[in-house]
Amino acid sequence: MAAVFDDRARLAAMLAFEVALARAEAAIGLVPEMAAETIAGHADPDRYDLGRLAAETMLAGNPAIPLVKHLQAAVGPEARDHVHLGATSQDVIDSGTMLQMRAGLDLIIRDTTALAETLAALADRHRGTLQIGRTLLQHAVPVTFGLKVAGWLTMAARARAALVRVRGEALALQFGGAAGTLSALGSEGLEVAVALAAELDLPLPALPWHTDRTRIAEIAGALGMVAGMVGKIAGDLVQEMSSDVAEAFEATGPGKGGSSAMPHKRNPVHLVAARAAAAEAIGCVPVLIGGMVQEFERAAGNWHAEWRTLPRLFVAAHGAVVNLARALDGLEIDPARMRANLEATRGLVMAEAATARLAAAVGKVEARRLIERAVARAVAEDLHLEDALAEDPAVVRHLGPEALAETFDPAGYLGATEAFVDRALDAWDASRDGLPGPA
Amino acid sequence: MAAVFDDRARLAAMLAFEVALARAEAAIGLVPEMAAETIAGHADPDRYDLGRLAAETMLAGNPAIPLVKHLQAAVGPEARDHVHLGATSQDVIDSGTMLQMRAGLDLIIRDTTALAETLAALADRHRGTLQIGRTLLQHAVPVTFGLKVAGWLTMAARARAALVRVRGEALALQFGGAAGTLSALGSEGLEVAVALAAELDLPLPALPWHTDRTRIAEIAGALGMVAGMVGKIAGDLVQEMSSDVAEAFEATGPGKGGSSAMPHKRNPVHLVAARAAAAEAIGCVPVLIGGMVQEFERAAGNWHAEWRTLPRLFVAAHGAVVNLARALDGLEIDPARMRANLEATRGLVMAEAATARLAAAVGKVEARRLIERAVARAVAEDLHLEDALAEDPAVVRHLGPEALAETFDPAGYLGATEAFVDRALDAWDASRDGLPGPA
Amino acid sequence: MAAVFDDRARLAAMLAFEVALARAEAAIGLVPEMAAETIAGHADPDRYDLGRLAAETMLAGNPAIPLVKHLQAAVGPEARDHVHLGATSQDVIDSGTMLQMRAGLDLIIRDTTALAETLAALADRHRGTLQIGRTLLQHAVPVTFGLKVAGWLTMAARARAALVRVRGEALALQFGGAAGTLSALGSEGLEVAVALAAELDLPLPALPWHTDRTRIAEIAGALGMVAGMVGKIAGDLVQEMSSDVAEAFEATGPGKGGSSAMPHKRNPVHLVAARAAAAEAIGCVPVLIGGMVQEFERAAGNWHAEWRTLPRLFVAAHGAVVNLARALDGLEIDPARMRANLEATRGLVMAEAATARLAAAVGKVEARRLIERAVARAVAEDLHLEDALAEDPAVVRHLGPEALAETFDPAGYLGATEAFVDRALDAWDASRDGLPGPA
Amino acid sequence: MAAVFDDRARLAAMLAFEVALARAEAAIGLVPEMAAETIAGHADPDRYDLGRLAAETMLAGNPAIPLVKHLQAAVGPEARDHVHLGATSQDVIDSGTMLQMRAGLDLIIRDTTALAETLAALADRHRGTLQIGRTLLQHAVPVTFGLKVAGWLTMAARARAALVRVRGEALALQFGGAAGTLSALGSEGLEVAVALAAELDLPLPALPWHTDRTRIAEIAGALGMVAGMVGKIAGDLVQEMSSDVAEAFEATGPGKGGSSAMPHKRNPVHLVAARAAAAEAIGCVPVLIGGMVQEFERAAGNWHAEWRTLPRLFVAAHGAVVNLARALDGLEIDPARMRANLEATRGLVMAEAATARLAAAVGKVEARRLIERAVARAVAEDLHLEDALAEDPAVVRHLGPEALAETFDPAGYLGATEAFVDRALDAWDASRDGLPGPA
Repeated sequence: MAAVFDDRARLAAMLAFEVALARAEAAIGLVPEMAAETIAGHADPDRYDLGRLAAETMLAGNPAIPLVKHLQAAVGPEARDHVHLGATSQDVIDSGTMLQMRAGLDLIIRDTTALAETLAALADRHRGTLQIGRTLLQHAVPVTFGLKVAGWLTMAARARAALVRVRGEALALQFGGAAGTLSALGSEGLEVAVALAAELDLPLPALPWHTDRTRIAEIAGALGMVAGMVGKIAGDLVQEMSSDVAEAFEATGPGKGGSSAMPHKRNPVHLVAARAAAAEAIGCVPVLIGGMVQEFERAAGNWHAEWRTLPRLFVAAHGAVVNLARALDGLEIDPARMRANLEATRGLVMAEAATARLAAAVGKVEARRLIERAVARAVAEDLHLEDALAEDPAVVRHLGPEALAETFDPAGYLGATEAFVDRALDAWDASRDGLPGPA
Repeated sequence: MAAVFDDRARLAAMLAFEVALARAEAAIGLVPEMAAETIAGHADPDRYDLGRLAAETMLAGNPAIPLVKHLQAAVGPEARDHVHLGATSQDVIDSGTMLQMRAGLDLIIRDTTALAETLAALADRHRGTLQIGRTLLQHAVPVTFGLKVAGWLTMAARARAALVRVRGEALALQFGGAAGTLSALGSEGLEVAVALAAELDLPLPALPWHTDRTRIAEIAGALGMVAGMVGKIAGDLVQEMSSDVAEAFEATGPGKGGSSAMPHKRNPVHLVAARAAAAEAIGCVPVLIGGMVQEFERAAGNWHAEWRTLPRLFVAAHGAVVNLARALDGLEIDPARMRANLEATRGLVMAEAATARLAAAVGKVEARRLIERAVARAVAEDLHLEDALAEDPAVVRHLGPEALAETFDPAGYLGATEAFVDRALDAWDASRDGLPGPA
Repeated sequence: MAAVFDDRARLAAMLAFEVALARAEAAIGLVPEMAAETIAGHADPDRYDLGRLAAETMLAGNPAIPLVKHLQAAVGPEARDHVHLGATSQDVIDSGTMLQMRAGLDLIIRDTTALAETLAALADRHRGTLQIGRTLLQHAVPVTFGLKVAGWLTMAARARAALVRVRGEALALQFGGAAGTLSALGSEGLEVAVALAAELDLPLPALPWHTDRTRIAEIAGALGMVAGMVGKIAGDLVQEMSSDVAEAFEATGPGKGGSSAMPHKRNPVHLVAARAAAAEAIGCVPVLIGGMVQEFERAAGNWHAEWRTLPRLFVAAHGAVVNLARALDGLEIDPARMRANLEATRGLVMAEAATARLAAAVGKVEARRLIERAVARAVAEDLHLEDALAEDPAVVRHLGPEALAETFDPAGYLGATEAFVDRALDAWDASRDGLPGPA
Repeated sequence: MAAVFDDRARLAAMLAFEVALARAEAAIGLVPEMAAETIAGHADPDRYDLGRLAAETMLAGNPAIPLVKHLQAAVGPEARDHVHLGATSQDVIDSGTMLQMRAGLDLIIRDTTALAETLAALADRHRGTLQIGRTLLQHAVPVTFGLKVAGWLTMAARARAALVRVRGEALALQFGGAAGTLSALGSEGLEVAVALAAELDLPLPALPWHTDRTRIAEIAGALGMVAGMVGKIAGDLVQEMSSDVAEAFEATGPGKGGSSAMPHKRNPVHLVAARAAAAEAIGCVPVLIGGMVQEFERAAGNWHAEWRTLPRLFVAAHGAVVNLARALDGLEIDPARMRANLEATRGLVMAEAATARLAAAVGKVEARRLIERAVARAVAEDLHLEDALAEDPAVVRHLGPEALAETFDPAGYLGATEAFVDRALDAWDASRDGLPGPA
């Protein structure tokens, strides 16, 4: 992703605009075909001195001004007047950025799709892997690891859908000339715009959007969703991997995450990197939403603030996805520890289940009274709740050993878990229909 | 909007959930019809003591716990065990918030639609009202006020589309029970969920989303777009209304914006309120995107941070729209001042047009030379550029007085302005197809 | 804190400004003493209709305009021309806000001081309470709970120092008249300003700061530090209180945090509220720092964005402190569980200590080899590392049972823990010197 | 600033820590002097392969782990066990960052000091340069450009003071070992820490601050103040430079800001860059304040999020200062245009002054009536207010031509302007006492 947004890529994208513009104008007859091809022949970014362009950009205020000068010098007197005809700096820069963002979105869509596929497989595989559900970090009632992952999958699928949507709806050609009227092209501006959009394969917007940054903010919002999704999943996994929970782990490897001084530690290297990148990415979003406030026909600052912020956002959001994917690749699950944690409260997490079971026999009020008595005893005497109940004649009258064992089997208290996992997998399958798959 | 999100409305929405839940369970046979109707008979929020609920919420950690207790007490022994059956606090609170957000979205969609209609009419009316285009706050080339407004319309339409999209795609029932499995409802959880979703007319999600806050973040993002849109438009209008530009003004009125001590001042009261509200709204967005990072099956803080932030965001975003609409209602345009500002550089803003016209006769290089010479003289001697050119024999040979006058007519240098305005209006018309209109 | 910033308090503060202004001007002879006292006699906020003022504020653009009108009407023809003499709306509003912020800072300083005192006592009491240190949520080496709390204390002390500093350095009178020149007071403006500052006991700044919001941003920054501090401490405690760590707990109480359906749960009610409030508070800070960008002599939006954001920030930051204090009040520590967690890796967390001990006898290279061998065996055969070492003749030659036991005593591997706790307590004591104590 | 925070500088700073640590330990006798000097002999960052370190960092989770390995390999078997003794990765990285931040703060303090000096000179020079004051962008009453600049100076001085304060109070050694106890150094940890702090010339904190990021947040806050200050000043200057105000301008130069196609444009190149950098910098602040929420003894993500954010913040904040300084360097002021703008409302901005003058003769009520009548006539008939008054016998009776001319002289209606400028300059002089001057 860094390569999609580095200085050379930005230069290449701006040159691609200039070539497409010349060709579009040639097609309409505003520019000689020959001149357009001469310009195209000078579109290799490696012909230009990035350091010099950077220095000149500082003085000129934007990179398009020096680039156009160098391009004009390069193409010679025959073609120079046909360079950049009718365009303004912002047309070049914004359209170039759109080309870069298209590549960037393709990359992050590809990797988010792969991430969702990984999660779908994981959800399916562990749909029955019992685990304690934790609310406010307190043990609540049993869930399965597959259900948890199905929730992650739903987030990833939704974030991916947001990316796909902005890939389809937010990209657009920028082409308006000095103040958005294409006045320098007289009556032919719109025709050039149509041809240019076709050349660059970018949608033609209703009108130039020099200071309407909604598209940028939408893309930022979608990347923010991605970062939030990664932050949630990586946060859960860091907790899973904590020494105190220890239910799931990033794969280890040479040079990765271990500490010879502390052999018991398995540092969540990729998860930590994913969380850090997610936080960075989220920090970029308000700069871009706040940056929608732009003056008149060209902004005096907030447009320029995008230049470094957008690349950072793409790189950070993508880094978040990639690091999470790395953490999931070879993820080790410890079902025994999951089971042990489920038992850590010695049956208390099944009190709700036991109450329900007993209520069928004795009514809710009495059931609650009996369970509360047993819970109190279990806690006081450090008994398993099942044993405390088994020793209460008022209970065993209605629930024999077998019924009790059944009641205390967490696998029997999963409610709609299977159905929810299926629904999440189905929704993912459906959402992928007609969408490009991972490369 | 404040009324949609105040404590009473929150209470009403939670009670609506409890009623719908009881009815859904009654339909399936889990709860007696009579009990469901008893519960429904106690759903009037005015029966409850908001102050007491608030105090108990502080202790209980959320408003659902005390509410359920009071509701149970209210419905009496027959129905009490049928209250809140199988649900968890977060189910009540999140589903209630969804109901409130539905009402809130309807309100802001209505007002954003009306705003866009106002802008569409304004763009059409002023499609030919000449004005100087300003880039980096420098006079550039002519535009029309209608074109500027067409750009605003495009933003408003796009922000509205985002609202309509989240209205359709982000709302959902929350119903998962203690840890998202609906375990307390055994094998009937999903059936209850389907019925409950129908009762509340909320879409049924694939699975509970207790710690998947993508929906919330999407709504926040859409409201952020609205705020950014208002920030841009109100910012431009504050500038338009500045004493130094003075091209457009909020209507005045008794007690509004004036200053008897400073009779020449026309304070942009509503615009300023709109900008302030937009800034506040944008400030809420990162709290909600960052808040997507939630722990396991129920978050220990970031969920709770939504409780005050979401209402603030809705109120601020709506306040931004409403204040902008007020500012636009009766907006006064001063075309004479617009024209005077267009002339303020004494023809220099037409130098580009003159160069193009002259180039047709003498070629670009010579045209540029002649114009630059005339510009230098015009600046040095404080002449209008048209006059400087008219006094240059090398120019008048090719451009007679009539041609010069034509060249310096800004109305003749508007390029695709008309087409762009039409396209923006058409796009707005098209985007409204099949969508609910303003109330 | 809500009471410090509600509408009535805002009104009272603005009235206090008007009274002080009239008195200051009376002292200098610009206003009759009688008029000043008449004005003072109408400074009771309860005489004014808050709802009506709110409605008029919407039209006027700020609350000072209608308030001055009502005050003028109230004081009658004799005094009305002496109301608000030489002041502008922003003078009243900003100075009033300063009075409110002074009260707000006093409140949060008081409660942060008390919080730090609680932490200091806790650090001292538990300076020797052994606990595992966790890095990246992995068990690392032993620490004590007191050391952890000493770190929290240092944060609280530092946040408190930031509050005390802005209490001393950021508050200031606002008094500049229409555009910051006090022109309406002719040559006596500065003299009035000096007297007014004395009346209100607010520092006199070098010059009016209508659009220099550094003071506001500094206060916001200090409150952000407070929120960050609470976020860190409450975050740690939520983890401590998790079922999987279970080392420390908020006190329970009637109606608080418990769940009869899930008797084993002890919800971190106040901690969760503290974290939510901290997140909200932090979200306000960038609005106020970003809001420093204000136009010329009075801002057209960013000043107004402060009006709701500042109170929210104060209320949220204070709520964070108060809820954390509640959580700490009666905090239950479980040293046995801490000790058990310390042992959970069966001695592996002491590998570093054992290596060091062995190295003294056999050199580092050989020590590392021996320990790594024992660790491998301990992990493979599920032994305690101490036992694995005890069974290795190459080890026992140098470390007998007693030496081994000593090595594996975490209390013997605490390094500078005691000194660090002392230093933190000393620093807190020193930082309190000369500062106002908790009420 | 980029060079202070690039990869090589980070490496150099980490190596400086390792050298200082070895020397501190040698001084105490824990490490042979020879080994310390061998380590010092391998501290040249150019000996290390930055690309390889970056790759290994990705796997290891932080740059200290591979660096220590390479350093150990480089120093050979004699010294290798003396490398990094008792330290943890975070000690190296945080202390290294502190060294970089010290250099970064020195740089930005130097440039902010110079900026303030420029502003002080400008304020003094233009203390009498008349200009219209603008509130809500409306012409209000006269001010001077010097007064406006004195306000900017006050902001710059205050931001500089914040930098100086964090330079003195927020920097600190990080040194705690694996979990903040320095356990690997036994009883000598604190002694090493004292020596190490002295070696690096960094203050010794009360205790390690691995997850107490208040210092970082304080530095971020100070840089945020700087960015806010630049945003305000650059925002005002962009407005001053707008074609519609046109009172002050960035100097032009070859290749800078001009447009041959639009010869009348003077693009605010440096101001725009300053505003963009300020927006970026402000966007980094909440990431760092929010990042204070860190887990236990080492954070699993928020620490890592600092690694890229802090450098960005320093570079952006410094870029903001530097670009503003460039814009001020050679700033062109147009007092004639200022005067013309002051007259643009044809005397209406002096209505307040005229009212006051007249009130001395006829009382406030009558004065107000007369002025309002004249204002109405002036507006209706497009007269200068002075002329409208001169034609009103009820006025001329009390204010003759001379008195009227005096009244309408804006220089006579500046109130405390001179005193305020003096006070701001004095405060700046005082705040510089004992502080390091610009290089």
